Amino acid sequence: MSLHGSYDSENIFAKIIRGDAPCYKIYEDDDVLAFLDLFPQSYGHTLVLPKHVEARNLLDIEPEKLSQLITVVQRLAQVLTDELEPAGVQIAQFNGAPAGQTVFHLHFHVIPRFAGEDLAIHASKMADKAELEALQARLQQRIGAL
Amino acid sequence: MSLHGSYDSENIFAKIIRGDAPCYKIYEDDDVLAFLDLFPQSYGHTLVLPKHVEARNLLDIEPEKLSQLITVVQRLAQVLTDELEPAGVQIAQFNGAPAGQTVFHLHFHVIPRFAGEDLAIHASKMADKAELEALQARLQQRIGAL
Repeated sequence: MSLHGSYDSENIFAKIIRGDAPCYKIYEDDDVLAFLDLFPQSYGHTLVLPKHVEARNLLDIEPEKLSQLITVVQRLAQVLTDELEPAGVQIAQFNGAPAGQTVFHLHFHVIPRFAGEDLAIHASKMADKAELEALQARLQQRIGAL
Repeated sequence: MSLHGSYDSENIFAKIIRGDAPCYKIYEDDDVLAFLDLFPQSYGHTLVLPKHVEARNLLDIEPEKLSQLITVVQRLAQVLTDELEPAGVQIAQFNGAPAGQTVFHLHFHVIPRFAGEDLAIHASKMADKAELEALQARLQQRIGAL
């Protein structure tokens, strides 16, 4: 598993960006898409990824595109903080399978942390559909009011 | 512990930035400082932080300054990858004590991951001084050759 390699345009995030697979989208602009993680490590676990960029990981993206991405990460960390009032927020970004990366399209995790609650193991349990829909609606409303 | 609060200018990273405390510096420019973590979770564990910014966490920094910071994070991830040839790299940024933050000056962790090696628990064991010095020299040389 190398950090360098060719981009597979059939990865699930590429499909989501193209609209070929569904997601619980909470934010989108010309360059960035954000949606709720289906296997959340905490309530509100959000993924933020660049569109129109064939980047497997952090090493593959132009600094300008990365700057757009981190700015949205920051905004969504603020939105999640305002809406869910967590005790903390973790930002994580994994490069390479040994670092925990499971989908090879660059993405940032925004993970609210609640006092006394450990993180779930990633990809261990799919979130309840109704819960994701309700959370999506709350966050979309909060973002719309910015 | 709130995500919002006043900045304590006596935190250890503020002292390091001012030159009032030492560090194993590997990179510095007008806006960003990077040095080796004294209690590394893996070989090459590096911290990247903004200078001249009283930011406790991600929510406190202007997007332009954050963009400068993430661009250096990316460059150092590349440098660490080139020099140490890890199997992966983790980027982590913690906001608030419940999220794992221990020093309340915004910083990114760049953590090389090596196949078959788990991460050490953060702050559990101080790295060997000679090892840090040797690693600092290697990385400074690699950065100087960019």
